[in-house]
Amino acid sequence: MSTRRLLLSLILFHLTSTWSAWAYADEGMWTLDNLPREQLRTRYGFEPDQAFLNRAMQGTVRLASGCSGSLVSREGLMLTNHHCVIGCVQALSTADEDFVSKGFLAKKRGAEKQCPGMEVNQLQETSDVTAAINKATHGLEGEAFSEARKNVFSALQNACVEGNAERIRCDMVELYQGAIVHLYRYARYPDVRLVFSPEFASGFFGGDPDNFNFPRFNLDMGLLRVYENGRPLSNRVYFPLRESGAKEGELVITLGHPGETERLLTVSQLQLRRDHLLPFQLMLESEYRGLLNHYSQGGDEPARIARSDLTMLENGLKVMRGERQTLVAAEVMQAKREEEDGLRTWAQQQSEAVAVKNPWDATQQATSALRNFYPEYLMIASGYAFRSEIMGFARWLVRAAEERARSFEERLEGYSEAELPAIKQRVIAQRPVYADYDVIRLTWSLEKLREVLGVDHPFVRTVLGKDSPGAVAKRTIEGSALADPDLRVKLWEGGQAAIEASEDPAIQLARIINGTARLLHLKHKATVDAPMKKAAKDLAALRFARFGTSVYPDGTFSLRASFGTIKGWKEGDTTVSSATTFASLFDRATPYEPFQLGEAWVQASKAIEPSRRFNQVSDNDITGGNSGSPLINAKGEIVGLIFDGNIHSLGGAFFYDGSLNRAISVHPEAMITALKTIYPAPHLLRELRH
Amino acid sequence: MSTRRLLLSLILFHLTSTWSAWAYADEGMWTLDNLPREQLRTRYGFEPDQAFLNRAMQGTVRLASGCSGSLVSREGLMLTNHHCVIGCVQALSTADEDFVSKGFLAKKRGAEKQCPGMEVNQLQETSDVTAAINKATHGLEGEAFSEARKNVFSALQNACVEGNAERIRCDMVELYQGAIVHLYRYARYPDVRLVFSPEFASGFFGGDPDNFNFPRFNLDMGLLRVYENGRPLSNRVYFPLRESGAKEGELVITLGHPGETERLLTVSQLQLRRDHLLPFQLMLESEYRGLLNHYSQGGDEPARIARSDLTMLENGLKVMRGERQTLVAAEVMQAKREEEDGLRTWAQQQSEAVAVKNPWDATQQATSALRNFYPEYLMIASGYAFRSEIMGFARWLVRAAEERARSFEERLEGYSEAELPAIKQRVIAQRPVYADYDVIRLTWSLEKLREVLGVDHPFVRTVLGKDSPGAVAKRTIEGSALADPDLRVKLWEGGQAAIEASEDPAIQLARIINGTARLLHLKHKATVDAPMKKAAKDLAALRFARFGTSVYPDGTFSLRASFGTIKGWKEGDTTVSSATTFASLFDRATPYEPFQLGEAWVQASKAIEPSRRFNQVSDNDITGGNSGSPLINAKGEIVGLIFDGNIHSLGGAFFYDGSLNRAISVHPEAMITALKTIYPAPHLLRELRH
Repeated sequence: MSTRRLLLSLILFHLTSTWSAWAYADEGMWTLDNLPREQLRTRYGFEPDQAFLNRAMQGTVRLASGCSGSLVSREGLMLTNHHCVIGCVQALSTADEDFVSKGFLAKKRGAEKQCPGMEVNQLQETSDVTAAINKATHGLEGEAFSEARKNVFSALQNACVEGNAERIRCDMVELYQGAIVHLYRYARYPDVRLVFSPEFASGFFGGDPDNFNFPRFNLDMGLLRVYENGRPLSNRVYFPLRESGAKEGELVITLGHPGETERLLTVSQLQLRRDHLLPFQLMLESEYRGLLNHYSQGGDEPARIARSDLTMLENGLKVMRGERQTLVAAEVMQAKREEEDGLRTWAQQQSEAVAVKNPWDATQQATSALRNFYPEYLMIASGYAFRSEIMGFARWLVRAAEERARSFEERLEGYSEAELPAIKQRVIAQRPVYADYDVIRLTWSLEKLREVLGVDHPFVRTVLGKDSPGAVAKRTIEGSALADPDLRVKLWEGGQAAIEASEDPAIQLARIINGTARLLHLKHKATVDAPMKKAAKDLAALRFARFGTSVYPDGTFSLRASFGTIKGWKEGDTTVSSATTFASLFDRATPYEPFQLGEAWVQASKAIEPSRRFNQVSDNDITGGNSGSPLINAKGEIVGLIFDGNIHSLGGAFFYDGSLNRAISVHPEAMITALKTIYPAPHLLRELRH
Repeated sequence: MSTRRLLLSLILFHLTSTWSAWAYADEGMWTLDNLPREQLRTRYGFEPDQAFLNRAMQGTVRLASGCSGSLVSREGLMLTNHHCVIGCVQALSTADEDFVSKGFLAKKRGAEKQCPGMEVNQLQETSDVTAAINKATHGLEGEAFSEARKNVFSALQNACVEGNAERIRCDMVELYQGAIVHLYRYARYPDVRLVFSPEFASGFFGGDPDNFNFPRFNLDMGLLRVYENGRPLSNRVYFPLRESGAKEGELVITLGHPGETERLLTVSQLQLRRDHLLPFQLMLESEYRGLLNHYSQGGDEPARIARSDLTMLENGLKVMRGERQTLVAAEVMQAKREEEDGLRTWAQQQSEAVAVKNPWDATQQATSALRNFYPEYLMIASGYAFRSEIMGFARWLVRAAEERARSFEERLEGYSEAELPAIKQRVIAQRPVYADYDVIRLTWSLEKLREVLGVDHPFVRTVLGKDSPGAVAKRTIEGSALADPDLRVKLWEGGQAAIEASEDPAIQLARIINGTARLLHLKHKATVDAPMKKAAKDLAALRFARFGTSVYPDGTFSLRASFGTIKGWKEGDTTVSSATTFASLFDRATPYEPFQLGEAWVQASKAIEPSRRFNQVSDNDITGGNSGSPLINAKGEIVGLIFDGNIHSLGGAFFYDGSLNRAISVHPEAMITALKTIYPAPHLLRELRH
């Protein structure tokens, strides 16, 4: 799966640079206003008109939590991945009714269940605000630059939501490292309901062992419905499913929201990632994985409780391992270094107007700064040390109350009026809390706090005193009443006064944390984030001057299109073919997780044509956030549902290798067969017009 | 603690090279036949005579499992660390009687309990066999070289044990990367009994958080007694304890068995370590740590069962983190690179006789080879994928039976007649087996096998078939009878025929593993180990030619002396003083592990003079294997018991930094106070003459 996925290539045959010639026609995640039209025309004979672009924008949606999706009926039915809805399915499950294990299918509208805290965004309008921002930040450096930038961002966002932040969401989209900034206005839909999710065993068949691998057999699909004013959304544009999919060689297009690529990072940034940040996270999260793994062995109920966390964690670990593996390949770093040296030499030869302040040295300085305090920053400010649902609520409540009490200019980034509704929705969402699970996770993460920063670190001493991590966790979680959503609503609405009056131990601990965390955020902003952004912008300006604008920007979790064809690849001497079938799925199945098929599948196996296709690969350039993206043909019909990349694509965070990188999607034949034969859902098939 | 410890320096002020000028008088782990006499005389006025050297050799002993120790009475009483005896204490404990938690004190000789599988070695004689080896390997390359070398090693060892391998142990000691080889003959004592171990809470006060840190408060001492023919050893030489310790500035000497330093590795070897081997192990072991941590939370009995494994694991992780942290410091790698370039340039200018074949390229080739198969090698051949006591027994039994059936020349290294008794002792040792714990660990490690090598790897398919890791583990452990030591004795004695006839599922699985593991060992030998050893020897020859022999060899778990003084250090602006006291121990204590003191301590606290010293630091150059080393003065009195290094010493695997690296020892005042006031043991104090 690929939520916020950034990816690896163990064997690198070809190394192409984003900024060199457009070596692979299929590289790139393009904004709709800057498609590679010439290449599309010559390579595929495809010339997208305005109608196509409008449909692309209106038919594609985004889950604010980090996935993509598409509308597939006129009544708000939305297709995305199983792994994008699993958090909702988990939240709706109880010990008595475990929809994760057995799947979920609403037989009628009334049975569709609201997903707590889920938010769907549909892009309505984009505008270029680069000029306004450049004007506001002209001639500024360092903290002054970043303050001015934050303020003009907030002002633009606040104007954009038109006082209706409940229904409108406005995001600043920083393209090309912020050299171009767009303002994206989305319709916000906070009422999203679960329609269909297969059982975990099919949605994530092969589990972590098969994740990022191919051949593959995941029915990684989920159906949601977007509601407005308590009724299904009435939408004109949607994408129909084309059951037969696409032919090899035919143009296929992903539309979605690639979260983050980092193809333009400097060598010093990549080294920091390779040697410090990734290993730190990999060790920490690996240990957490071992903990959750053993917790899950405690019975069906613990397994159910931890399943979604564990799945996401394992996915993230595989991604980070892949990233690290890519960065330790000598060829990759060498290529990045040569590219950087080339640009640097070129810049030195230019007139002063072009040769801006050395962005590499500025970046190097910022990476050195971060190297000295990232453990504190990650543990305290990013909250790695406070893993618990209760502490999550408490930290959001305390932070939001404090920021809301400040003037607009003094707030931390992310707390403008326009952004508060999304935070509120997360805080007051009806999510189940499992106290034991919370105590175990908080205990462990407080132990890591002590381990990473040391027994004698002042913050550790403040949090623990003469107590143990276990004692603090138990007292905090068991003494807290924040599991009650009504209390959270009350605390949210009571603001800073209510927080200060609260004797809830989780709120009290969160207040201690927030004091230090806020200082670390400000330090990070001043010494790392702002200088890096400024340097990245300077670098982008240099690149523009040298290469022009016929290139695509890094992923920013905003709407992009990527182009390609259904296509296998060569793995050493072996050719991996482009699609799998039901026949090979049934062959791979065993009586044990994660290769065990549900009873409905075993029952249906005889009735299914074995040659029907299951999963397929194409060479579209995707990354995390593209999960749930429709794969469409030139007519706008869905010919696949993107859910992952192959193992080689794990280097995609840093570069695209067209000979090996593949996107993996669910074939429409698998989706329709599932709804027809395995989980009979004639009402949904009718709605999908099949 | 420091069993097989290899270490880190986060902040590197001074970087000294082993082979450059003797910048720090206190660098080096010296063999007794090559002490830095000139420096000892000028710096400390110390001129060790033959009597001193004889006492040093006879008073110092080694635990074959990887620790050092010293004789402290005429009746075989042996002082070492708590963490060196904890494995024995754990093996002697049961659910009803947990000596780990409550400690152990034999009130009389008859109550001393034999440590299963423990072996003490006392060095009796050393001889230089370099000439014999050079003759046997003259003119050979590659596999022929390494075969000839293995065979002459085995022949020398077999001759040395004089057909009495039960009582004599002979080790080849490869000094200076094998440029000089000594044959060390030890007396073997396989009957070693536990006399005293403090409770875990005091032996490892501060636990993992304080490990490798200072100020420190560990009573990391344990007392064993060496038996011969069923009676306490009668030994002439021993070291008395000097209660007042040493003064600052006074020469203090460690005698012990530093396990392994790698100060002479090439840059390509260090890079392989930094980018591949260490991260691989760190991620794997971190996950295992999370698993064991949560397992331990399951109650007192699981905590007891896993405690020793978890402690050793956490110690190893801290060491590996430190190693990695050292190697990612740009200055360290830069210094290593410059040193290498310097020697290479020098070599190119020499006559052909000196300028041997390029050892750096050969090493580079071997590291590239290893990079391509280390995951298979570690998982299968090193047994990372088969974590279980039962599978440990099974793998030893199968391997030993198969090797014993081969001719001497065809055996794997480590299986000569001289080495078999030590293996047999491990296999037949009366160690408790906890089936549930075994199933959990084997399940997890088989999952990792599948994850690391992939679902479709042929070996994975052979081991798992259509089963899950959990099913294979359960079937193997629950179906095996190897927990019974008598059966293991029978299988050992029955040799290959008994193994082939066995239907025990653990033996059957071990046979599958052994086939592949043996091939991987041979591949590793041929493509990695032999070429690296050859290159290291060539490199050492170059270094001799350039720097002469006034340098010390890397650690080889053989007897060494290191020299220094009791001395604190500067940590940024703060001065860390050289010793801690009982007063600050009682101040640091909390009601919670790992900072909780046992009842006996709380009771005794009033009766103890607060200023009595507890732990201390000196600048002796030590590493893993030195655990349990006596710290003696020039008169041969014990003035400390080495048990750890400070956090800066974690870079010690790769270089010594005299301004920051410190060895940590237990002060004699703490040991004597403990035996006098806390665990009253007048009989032991009498034996120690206090």
